[in-house]
Amino acid sequence: MSEEITVTQETLDKLMVPSTATLTSALNKRGLWNIFMNNVSPLKPGMKMAGPAFTMRYIPSREDVDRIPVDNLVDIQRVGIEQVGPGEVFVIDARGDDRAGTMGSILATRLHVRGAAGIVCDGSYRDSPAIADIGIPAFSSAMNAHTNKTIHSPIDLQLPIACGGVAVYPGDIIVGDCEGVVVIPRHLAAEVAEEAAASEQKENFILEKIQNGASIVGTYPPDENTLAEFEAWKKERNE
Amino acid sequence: MSEEITVTQETLDKLMVPSTATLTSALNKRGLWNIFMNNVSPLKPGMKMAGPAFTMRYIPSREDVDRIPVDNLVDIQRVGIEQVGPGEVFVIDARGDDRAGTMGSILATRLHVRGAAGIVCDGSYRDSPAIADIGIPAFSSAMNAHTNKTIHSPIDLQLPIACGGVAVYPGDIIVGDCEGVVVIPRHLAAEVAEEAAASEQKENFILEKIQNGASIVGTYPPDENTLAEFEAWKKERNE
Amino acid sequence: MSEEITVTQETLDKLMVPSTATLTSALNKRGLWNIFMNNVSPLKPGMKMAGPAFTMRYIPSREDVDRIPVDNLVDIQRVGIEQVGPGEVFVIDARGDDRAGTMGSILATRLHVRGAAGIVCDGSYRDSPAIADIGIPAFSSAMNAHTNKTIHSPIDLQLPIACGGVAVYPGDIIVGDCEGVVVIPRHLAAEVAEEAAASEQKENFILEKIQNGASIVGTYPPDENTLAEFEAWKKERNE
Amino acid sequence: MSEEITVTQETLDKLMVPSTATLTSALNKRGLWNIFMNNVSPLKPGMKMAGPAFTMRYIPSREDVDRIPVDNLVDIQRVGIEQVGPGEVFVIDARGDDRAGTMGSILATRLHVRGAAGIVCDGSYRDSPAIADIGIPAFSSAMNAHTNKTIHSPIDLQLPIACGGVAVYPGDIIVGDCEGVVVIPRHLAAEVAEEAAASEQKENFILEKIQNGASIVGTYPPDENTLAEFEAWKKERNE
Amino acid sequence: MSEEITVTQETLDKLMVPSTATLTSALNKRGLWNIFMNNVSPLKPGMKMAGPAFTMRYIPSREDVDRIPVDNLVDIQRVGIEQVGPGEVFVIDARGDDRAGTMGSILATRLHVRGAAGIVCDGSYRDSPAIADIGIPAFSSAMNAHTNKTIHSPIDLQLPIACGGVAVYPGDIIVGDCEGVVVIPRHLAAEVAEEAAASEQKENFILEKIQNGASIVGTYPPDENTLAEFEAWKKERNE
Amino acid sequence: MSEEITVTQETLDKLMVPSTATLTSALNKRGLWNIFMNNVSPLKPGMKMAGPAFTMRYIPSREDVDRIPVDNLVDIQRVGIEQVGPGEVFVIDARGDDRAGTMGSILATRLHVRGAAGIVCDGSYRDSPAIADIGIPAFSSAMNAHTNKTIHSPIDLQLPIACGGVAVYPGDIIVGDCEGVVVIPRHLAAEVAEEAAASEQKENFILEKIQNGASIVGTYPPDENTLAEFEAWKKERNE
Repeated sequence: MSEEITVTQETLDKLMVPSTATLTSALNKRGLWNIFMNNVSPLKPGMKMAGPAFTMRYIPSREDVDRIPVDNLVDIQRVGIEQVGPGEVFVIDARGDDRAGTMGSILATRLHVRGAAGIVCDGSYRDSPAIADIGIPAFSSAMNAHTNKTIHSPIDLQLPIACGGVAVYPGDIIVGDCEGVVVIPRHLAAEVAEEAAASEQKENFILEKIQNGASIVGTYPPDENTLAEFEAWKKERNE
Repeated sequence: MSEEITVTQETLDKLMVPSTATLTSALNKRGLWNIFMNNVSPLKPGMKMAGPAFTMRYIPSREDVDRIPVDNLVDIQRVGIEQVGPGEVFVIDARGDDRAGTMGSILATRLHVRGAAGIVCDGSYRDSPAIADIGIPAFSSAMNAHTNKTIHSPIDLQLPIACGGVAVYPGDIIVGDCEGVVVIPRHLAAEVAEEAAASEQKENFILEKIQNGASIVGTYPPDENTLAEFEAWKKERNE
Repeated sequence: MSEEITVTQETLDKLMVPSTATLTSALNKRGLWNIFMNNVSPLKPGMKMAGPAFTMRYIPSREDVDRIPVDNLVDIQRVGIEQVGPGEVFVIDARGDDRAGTMGSILATRLHVRGAAGIVCDGSYRDSPAIADIGIPAFSSAMNAHTNKTIHSPIDLQLPIACGGVAVYPGDIIVGDCEGVVVIPRHLAAEVAEEAAASEQKENFILEKIQNGASIVGTYPPDENTLAEFEAWKKERNE
Repeated sequence: MSEEITVTQETLDKLMVPSTATLTSALNKRGLWNIFMNNVSPLKPGMKMAGPAFTMRYIPSREDVDRIPVDNLVDIQRVGIEQVGPGEVFVIDARGDDRAGTMGSILATRLHVRGAAGIVCDGSYRDSPAIADIGIPAFSSAMNAHTNKTIHSPIDLQLPIACGGVAVYPGDIIVGDCEGVVVIPRHLAAEVAEEAAASEQKENFILEKIQNGASIVGTYPPDENTLAEFEAWKKERNE
Repeated sequence: MSEEITVTQETLDKLMVPSTATLTSALNKRGLWNIFMNNVSPLKPGMKMAGPAFTMRYIPSREDVDRIPVDNLVDIQRVGIEQVGPGEVFVIDARGDDRAGTMGSILATRLHVRGAAGIVCDGSYRDSPAIADIGIPAFSSAMNAHTNKTIHSPIDLQLPIACGGVAVYPGDIIVGDCEGVVVIPRHLAAEVAEEAAASEQKENFILEKIQNGASIVGTYPPDENTLAEFEAWKKERNE
Repeated sequence: MSEEITVTQETLDKLMVPSTATLTSALNKRGLWNIFMNNVSPLKPGMKMAGPAFTMRYIPSREDVDRIPVDNLVDIQRVGIEQVGPGEVFVIDARGDDRAGTMGSILATRLHVRGAAGIVCDGSYRDSPAIADIGIPAFSSAMNAHTNKTIHSPIDLQLPIACGGVAVYPGDIIVGDCEGVVVIPRHLAAEVAEEAAASEQKENFILEKIQNGASIVGTYPPDENTLAEFEAWKKERNE
């Protein structure tokens, strides 16, 4: 829908700094209230990612369609994986059904080698322990060793999907951290990156004050005095 | 995928006779084990339907995309409704989310007037009591007065979807009765119709015997004697 | 919070006319998107109600507090029932837990005799079949014969509560029909009643056109021509 | 465990009179708090049953064990059905999994012809609409046309089971009405029948007073005056 | 209800020693069977807490009430946080709804600085990874970056609430360890602390025997011989 | 059912090498699609197990049966624990109900001392943090400090059960790793062990190629060239 909107590397870099909580707040201010995925967590804490969504959709599998040998030139997931570009996040609509893995460690490794920024699904991976160690940020709802075709049939690429109860349009900017995954509409990415960076700085300042014993009253949200202190604090740190 | 396969009116007529249970058994024999929708029930018992699927897909709504006035030429659900042909069943993938209606009585009436054979969703309708009385078979999981955009965004037409945990490809034959909805892959419709009609007759014969006090042993499944009796019974009834 | 806002009998009477679906739409227009209860259905279709909420809250029961003989002067539910005024709707926060009844037929009858307009809970009743026949509209999620103290402890009256996933403030206007229950913030009741009556009339006009074969394009939503027709139709009917 | 305890026909007859709610209360008084099945409802309201449990247990099916032709002499469900005696209630542990029917109308008819008092499962039936009309009380959680082996494998008979979240020991007395199903431990059946009959009469008396405008205070629970009135009321009705 | 009952620091100190499992057993012996929270886990294992409950309740948010700037003097959660005393545990009733955070790291830090003993909710935090590192024991069901008002509205303080399916009265003693959170009715805290300390010692003795190869028969539960050994073992260790 | 089929120690040793994902694929090839437990995870990652199932079944507890002192000679769980042989995996059917522990650290230690290879339940343990450190692989769905009798009643041993949505027959080979637990029908253990070892080697070879930049096309699944390379690679490594 909006892939023609440019999102610069600078914006993506900025989005790597604030927490997904801060980004979610920035989207709330713009009237968006359903943009953080529910029940989708990092396989391994400590990795962060930001990149445009490359989407894939699963529907339930059916024996007459899906109990056939995998053909890389026909299987939609295989085709998609060989199309993902560097910096993209592969996002899978698994209908929240975690009774089979959506992919295993070989495909996840291929995505990593292709330069993908991350993998997200609202279901399971198989080989989850191995995927956790590949080096690519991966987010999911559960672990399950069943192969994907047990439950899922990959059906199309680069269409708008549901993931974790949230809409994901191809090209939306997907940011993940230890808490989970936020979806930033592409047209809002630049302004949200800007604002979140500023918010993050202000929150750090406020947190420091709270750690030092300040009441939240007057501090969070900041009143005029606190805002003045913040301006001084910023100046200090920039010099 | 398979819309070029012809399904005759005669086949559809035959599919109206047996129960969805009998049809499900016929599909089991062909190795298909996930073809009856889970948690999708008739709004009003007593109506039956059989017709090819016309599919629509919802994803979660998002305020920047969906809080706009409805435009019939752009809104995917509205566009779809004006495309549905006579005898088709409008099948909606609502991700099993029943927190808002997928359509209300005016749109359901429009489908009825256009000659649609039925409506199916794995979510809610709004105006459910009114929809129950329109005269079109309608199947759903719940009732909810919230408008669709509260939760759902209509996103595309005539793609394979999930509904009630089952795959639905456009053109698959959808049969509904008091028990719920079975999905018959288009390429199997003719043979399943044939077999189910025969099964239904045999089951009626068996049921009659069981009602008259026969043990299931020898009767259900029928042994040679019972099958011979059945042949006689059929002859009798045909004369 | 807002009980001092007067809601006239005339407003309540008007709210009895449109469907809960129409009322929900009127609230959507005012920016309210979570006001129809999820998974709360009428025990017996065909009854309608509109009245201010009298709220009660349950928490989980605990043996040291709740395994004692009922004392009508102390038991919060009993106290509440003897306080409910004519026309009020008794709304129970049962935390969506349906593993025990919230009340049985004797208490429901007492509410009916006191003139209550209805009973709503997001759990179960016990004696549900009997309650269905008392004559008071009753809405719930399930049926369960266990006594309330098995699971629930009545804890306070007339505080804001959750019911069916929706906020209910004492005095909010609760409207129920065959589809379920909508909560109208007290301060919006009058204007919503007004608007919904108008909407209902317009929807009836549109429905008639759709029944007669009109496309939804131009009709629903109505364009200028249709609106003009509607004005004429209204005049006709008023004469 | 307790099948040697005699439960007379007279006791069973008495248990047909009070509601399952009244029976549940009588069990509460004896310290039993988990004896009414959760989410198990009558297929068709208006039928009542009381009889000893004949239990069957399902586990998940597995292709190597269950994708074989049914043999009535080996299939545990078929064997069980031909063992059920007159007046017994066939109770099925389906693990609350409603994704396939546990039995269809032919087997249910056979149970009816054998004189079974009822059928209960915490899953689905297939042919539910037909089963509703056989004349045997049937209780379940959902409807599903899939054959049992899709999901379930019948594994043993007459062992203690779980059904609707409640323990059922073979021989326990199962009572069902429009609200659902209560399990009465066999050793308590006689005394519960006695007490419930008395309670039911008292509740009817109280209900009559409440209908006539009495406050619950003094009436429910009854104080000395009310109890005296009740004694008089009983005498009157016995003459 | 029972805040006037004194619970000494000595009692709280004793409650820090045994596991929540041992405390739960001590409560079982007193007839309490629903006192360990379901699905509420530590954000970071290895921290323990014991202190009186300071309760807060959320209901679902509504746009007309909750889409306003936070005012620390009015917002119930903010007011509550500035009232929590040293050693108290802030317990939040989030209705088990994890679709938005109940608080973030700044408020959690404020609670820590005020000397609170812990934080518990049956929903999510936002900034969960940061909260895990503050140094205050925190327990929850999930992580979610959405701000609280997305789903929740803070409504009152220091009332009895539900949390994790368990009743929590203000002043109840809340103990948390790596396994989760147990609620000890205030009036039982002293005796439970005493008994659990003794039980813990006995369990350690038994565990040692089991580790050394003893059968559970005679050992767990201990027979006379084992109890005699235990007395000897205790003496030894005290010298 | 099949305990007379010998499974050698060599087979068990081989099953310890491949991942549960590889084993699941080998079972898929034999037409088995529901053999990996859903929602059952290791208490502590890094431990692996393979051994025959020793099964135990819980049903819901009932006060008249279960609120009695534990007697090791009668309590089914205690009896079972003292029967488990070295190398066996104790598998518990907890009906997926995690509201109480199925066993605590003393019984788990006893199993460890008896030489059991692992413990699996589709519910909770109590003392989970302690059990994680005993040294025996333990798998479960949640943690809960409530004692087993709160919810569960141990009812029988060595019967076929459900666990994690999967059938487990006594003697089936249970393999667990960081991802979870797979059930291998006893009669397939030897051939699956053989095949999985070969698959694992091939997958390692493929993974190496993918890590080195190969496309999945031609590599996964391998074409003739890749298979030839694999043969060469194997030879190399064997020398």
